[in-house]
This record gives sequence, structure tokens and C-alpha cells, in this order.
Amino acid sequence: MSKVLLTGFGPWGSEKYNPSAEIALGFNNVVIGGYRVVGVVLPVSYRRVISDLPEILVKIKPDIALHIGLAPKSCEVRVERVAINLMYSEKGDVDGFKPVDEPIVPGGPVAYFATLPTRRIVERLKEEGIPAVLSYSAGTFLCNCAMYVSLHTIAAQRLETISGFIHIPYIPQQAVGKSAPSMCLHLSRKAVEIAIKESIDYLKQRESSKNR
Amino acid sequence: MSKVLLTGFGPWGSEKYNPSAEIALGFNNVVIGGYRVVGVVLPVSYRRVISDLPEILVKIKPDIALHIGLAPKSCEVRVERVAINLMYSEKGDVDGFKPVDEPIVPGGPVAYFATLPTRRIVERLKEEGIPAVLSYSAGTFLCNCAMYVSLHTIAAQRLETISGFIHIPYIPQQAVGKSAPSMCLHLSRKAVEIAIKESIDYLKQRESSKNR
Amino acid sequence: MSKVLLTGFGPWGSEKYNPSAEIALGFNNVVIGGYRVVGVVLPVSYRRVISDLPEILVKIKPDIALHIGLAPKSCEVRVERVAINLMYSEKGDVDGFKPVDEPIVPGGPVAYFATLPTRRIVERLKEEGIPAVLSYSAGTFLCNCAMYVSLHTIAAQRLETISGFIHIPYIPQQAVGKSAPSMCLHLSRKAVEIAIKESIDYLKQRESSKNR
Amino acid sequence: MSKVLLTGFGPWGSEKYNPSAEIALGFNNVVIGGYRVVGVVLPVSYRRVISDLPEILVKIKPDIALHIGLAPKSCEVRVERVAINLMYSEKGDVDGFKPVDEPIVPGGPVAYFATLPTRRIVERLKEEGIPAVLSYSAGTFLCNCAMYVSLHTIAAQRLETISGFIHIPYIPQQAVGKSAPSMCLHLSRKAVEIAIKESIDYLKQRESSKNR
Repeated sequence: MSKVLLTGFGPWGSEKYNPSAEIALGFNNVVIGGYRVVGVVLPVSYRRVISDLPEILVKIKPDIALHIGLAPKSCEVRVERVAINLMYSEKGDVDGFKPVDEPIVPGGPVAYFATLPTRRIVERLKEEGIPAVLSYSAGTFLCNCAMYVSLHTIAAQRLETISGFIHIPYIPQQAVGKSAPSMCLHLSRKAVEIAIKESIDYLKQRESSKNR
Repeated sequence: MSKVLLTGFGPWGSEKYNPSAEIALGFNNVVIGGYRVVGVVLPVSYRRVISDLPEILVKIKPDIALHIGLAPKSCEVRVERVAINLMYSEKGDVDGFKPVDEPIVPGGPVAYFATLPTRRIVERLKEEGIPAVLSYSAGTFLCNCAMYVSLHTIAAQRLETISGFIHIPYIPQQAVGKSAPSMCLHLSRKAVEIAIKESIDYLKQRESSKNR
Repeated sequence: MSKVLLTGFGPWGSEKYNPSAEIALGFNNVVIGGYRVVGVVLPVSYRRVISDLPEILVKIKPDIALHIGLAPKSCEVRVERVAINLMYSEKGDVDGFKPVDEPIVPGGPVAYFATLPTRRIVERLKEEGIPAVLSYSAGTFLCNCAMYVSLHTIAAQRLETISGFIHIPYIPQQAVGKSAPSMCLHLSRKAVEIAIKESIDYLKQRESSKNR
Repeated sequence: MSKVLLTGFGPWGSEKYNPSAEIALGFNNVVIGGYRVVGVVLPVSYRRVISDLPEILVKIKPDIALHIGLAPKSCEVRVERVAINLMYSEKGDVDGFKPVDEPIVPGGPVAYFATLPTRRIVERLKEEGIPAVLSYSAGTFLCNCAMYVSLHTIAAQRLETISGFIHIPYIPQQAVGKSAPSMCLHLSRKAVEIAIKESIDYLKQRESSKNR
């Protein structure tokens, strides 16, 4: 059966709750458009994402890898287009690792573009009434790191997986007292489902155009 | 039976949909904590709010008057504390009226404070996981006008009504393509219900402390 | 000689430098349009502003009272139109006083409108290339308090002073590391000078129209 | 004599004035730290930047190429770290060209990192009291295009030039009526001078460490 790897992130620092983890686990084993979702929660650890995510990808060999994470202060779903080979964190990850401008993969390419149909996903989200935007920077923390590691592993291992990253806003409860925008969990979850469906449609169209 | 007047606003300008109208109508005839809600949609017209709202208040004599409206660009529920005796609108209302610094009530007081338990409402909303904040300006358009007219009518007619205004954000569909924050309608609706409940509790506590 | 009282504020909390103090002192004894400026720095203390500002006003009997203060996070000059009879501060003033919804003047009016020609000042600032906007809330901290005390004193003492408040942004040095907007001190200073000149012109026009 | 190529951009669309052009021309022929600045204004045209900028670089062979442009809505100097091989513009450039996700250089790398000492420049700007931040996306319009073309030309032609891009805010006059942040021209100009000086220091330190 065709597979979708859906990763979210666990808590870190002052963010004790991460909606991306709840969404990833909630879709685990769910079948969308004939594809089975494998939901995984990644730790907010550079080291472990770098070591574990390649193993997960090689083992599962998903058709689609959708990585999601939390974007505090964002008012909309952000579909990321670029992952860069750089780590920087002032506050550090859960291991206390505070890299300053280090490469994720020494000698790796400067950047990868997402291979998911990012523009189509954003158009579709907007049609469905979900505020969404294309983004050209996933930052320098774990979100960018997971996206880079995923795309690099796929390239290095010559997997056929299409991959990308989506940032979701705070849920309302998290935004209380922060004067920050938020989005209800059910809406972020629907956005993830739409992104998966659009990616499946894209794969099917690509397949059928090859066969013509 | 005790009554709550709940007013929302109709559409205006480029905002073809106003969630405050849907919420006001949705609560019409609903009983909350033993109070019957009278839901009314006001037109986005200075003239008609100034002429009609006093009649509505005098006729219904509600215990509580909660006026709600849309605050584009807000990421949270804004509980207004102050209404000022001033009208200004560059784009104009639905009648094309574009007042420049005119008083709503010539000779009326500069301002009124809301008489709803505004701080309690905000505290309660936050406890319930709804982003909310006290606000000290309802602007100079219809929202401020309705709030001023309501409080002025209550003062002039010596009604016992407690009154105030709550701004709600865009719903997500409205925020699409605007890079603006939003809040799901069900959450704004819940915020309005909580504000009504807190106001009822406040009235009951005030009553019971009078009787002691 | 006609006089302008120009007040700024001293430092408070984490804001060790307050550009409003530097501007107020810088204009002290300067003559603008035939009016002598009396520059005074007020402490960020509710109690002392409430006790000292009325004495200053009664003693100096200025024709114009322009109060200025710092608005962190503002990107433009904010000309305030409304002062409300309310004190609230979570962090407290320099005396550690943390009022929760207390009146500045018990029994005083809910609010005063600025009596400076606020709209003219904003128009003029914009013509001169200085980003400026009318504002309808000066907050609930010392800026609002000084504005309220000034307007209330003038009303209670039947002074002929016209009065109002202008918020200025951070200077660039203060904004470093805060992702906050700022404005060069010389531009904020020019804004204050323009506000004084417009106020003088307004007084002269009012005088000459009376004499016609 | 060692050289610095400093490029700004001309006007486009509703932005009739571009401070980056004024700064680039203002530094033309100025000598900074023993390096002569060649100031050039690029047109806001994808086609012409792609055709002309490589010629300029090859002809001048500058030691340092600093490209600057306007970032509306930014409140601080943004030192860009990444240029991506992508063009997208909804409104189009001055030629009316509206690319949708086209590569700048077909077959070129996904991205280049700036080779200027970006972190040092930001640190230095902040020490000098100028709000500044590292940025990981220069957008998809001409600023990103010029940065990509510069870094790609340098790589392809094996030039020794170090290169990068700095975004500057609106000047105050441009921000009037837009509720947008701004920075005085003299401050943005000083930021550019500091960036050049830091880059020169970096080259000198690199040179002296090579010689050890």
C-alpha cells in the first residue's frame, strides 16, 4: 500500500504543547485517498533528527513525506518551499545544543526546494477557506533541519518520495496572554489533510501523464 | 423573564460577511442562565444606529446589552472599556455618511465606560482558552457609535441595563489572502456566550450583595 | 510672554532612556513663534504626576500644554485625542504602585478630549514627511494619566490652556535587538516643534477670528 | 586599487523613490578603508539584472559586491544570508514580466549563501545603535534575483569577490500614510558603510591569516 510519512514535533522550551505532534499522531494509520499515513513525533533535537529521520525514511520508503511544525506568531498555514543547510539556535534544542551557523550536512548542498506541489497546496487551502501562504524560509531551527534532512536523504538515497514542510499556527489556548494569532486545531488538521490529498492527486496526475 | 440584548452588525464596504450578525441571530431566543437573548442586527449606518438603538433599548429594557462587531486585523477577542462621543470615517458608512470629528450626541459627555464586568469577562475568556484582551478604544466607526449610543441611552433614560461592546476577529474564510489573523466562528460564539454568562453572574452577585 | 509647557517623562523599568525627557529639556527656554517653552521632566509616578502637574500648570499658566511620552512598538508619531479617568499597570510605576482600574480623579469625568488641534497637527506632520497618526487611546499608564490630569486641571481651574499628548517611537538605539520600529530623535524633535507651531497658529487664528 | 561594487535599485510600481539607489550613487567613487566604491543603480527588471549584472561583475572584478534594496514593512536593516534560484512576482517588474516559479538560472544550484561576513555585520550594526537582523529569505523579486545572479556569477566565473545583499527600510517620508516603519536615510547609509567596513576588515583578516 502507498504510504505517507507525517511527522510532527514534541514540546520544547516554554512550548509545552505542540499541535504538530497531536496532528501527526491523530493521522497515524488513517487511510487518505488509498494511502496509509504513518504518523511520527520527532524530538526537538538536531542530533536525533539528523540520525533518526534518514532511518525512518529508508525503512518506510513513503511516497509522500510531509513534515509539520509549529510557527509561533504566524496567523496562517505556511507551506515551506526551501530548506537550507544551516543550524542556528540561540536558546538551543532539547539537548541544550546551540549551533551557530553550522551545516546540517557538512558538504551538503546549500538548499533544497520542497518537492511537494507547494503552490497547488496553498491555492487549494485558500479555496477551502483556510488562510495559507507560501514561505521561503523555514528558519534555522528544527523545522528547517527536518525538511533539509528529509530532502537530502531522499536525494542521497535516490528515493522517489516527494517531501516538504508545513508550519501551523498556535492553537487558541496557546495564544492566550501572548497577543499572538492562532488557528483552531481542527482547521490546521484539515489543512494537513488537504496537503496530503493534493500531494496524492499530484502523484496520480504525474503517473498518468507518464503513462500516456 | 430577564433579557439580554445582543446586537451584531450587517455587512459594509468590502466586508460582505459580518460574523457578528450571524452570532447575534444565532443566539436570538436562546435562553442562557435563565435570561432570554434578543438578537438584533444593526445596519452599518450612523444615522440609523443613533435613531433605532435607543428605541430598541427602551422597548426591550434588557438587563444586559451586549453589542458585538468585527475587528479586522485583531487576533483576539477585544472587550471594549470606553466609548467616545466622536464620529470619524474616511470611507463612510452604508449611507455614504463620512463624518469628520462630529459628536454622536451633541452636548453629550466625552465618553462612557462600559458597565459590563469587562475585566472579569477577559479573565474568564482566557481561563476558557480564548485569546482575549481589554481594549481602550473601539475606534470612531459604528462599533464605537453603538456602544456610545447604548450607554448614553441607558444613562439618559435611567435604565438599569449594564452595557458594553466586544470586538471579534475575522473568521478564517475572511482572512484568506489578507495575511490577517482570524478566529473560528464557534470560538467567537463561545466568547460571546461566556461574556453573557459572566455578566449574568455579576448581576446576580450584585443583587445578592444588595440583599444582604 | 506667551508660554508653552512641554513635559516629557523620565526612565522607568527596563527603559533606562526616555527620548521624551531629552526632547522636553532640549526645548527648555527655546522661543518658538514668540512663545517661550518651559521644558519639564515628569517622573513615571502616578502619585507625583497627580500631585505635581496641577501645581506646575497653575504656576506657569501656559497657553499651550504639550505632554510627550514614549510609545514602545509604535512606528509613527501618535497624536492622542482622548484621556480616560483610569489607572491600570501590571508592572507598576517607579514607586511600585500597581493600580487596577482605579480612577485618576475620583468623581472626575470619564474622559477628556485633547484641546490641541490634533487633526491639523497630524496633517501637518505628514506634509512635512513625518509618519503620524491620530490615536484614540493613550493607554492606562502615566502618559494617559498626565494627559488626563492636565485637561482636568485646566477644566477645574478654568485655565485657558490648550492641552494634549503626543506619543513618540523608540529611538533607533533603543530598538536594537527588539525587532521594534523606531524614529530618529531629530525627527521626533521636529514633530514636537511642528505640533507646537501648529498649536500657536491655531491660537492666533482663534484670536483673530474672535476679534473680527 | 581594491574595489567595492555597491548596487541599489531604481523605482518600481508605486514606489517612485528607492533609497537604495540614492545610497549607491552617493557612495560612488567614495573611498572607504582604502577601497574605491563603484555605485551602480540596477533597473527593477529580472531580464536586465540577469544580463547586465554578470557583465558588471566581470568587468569591475570587485573585491566586495554589496547589493542593497528596499524592504517595505521592515523596521530594521536585514542582512540576507540566502539567495534562491526562483522568480515569482504577482505584480511584475518594470518590463511587465510576471514569472511564476521560474528559475533565475536554469540548471543552477537551488541556492547560494552570502559570502559576506553577515553575522559580524549584524553584530557591528547593533553595536553602533542600528536595528539589524539576519534574514533567511530575500523574497522572490529583484532583490533575491540580484543576490543570486551575483553569487552565481562569482561561482561560475571563479571570481574572488565576496558578495551579499542588505535590505533597508522605507525612509520616513515614504512611510507617511502607510502605518509602516521607517529608518532615516542617514542611518541606512551608515549601515551600508559599516557593512562595507566590516567586509573589508574580514578580507584583511583572512588575508593576514593566510600569510601566517
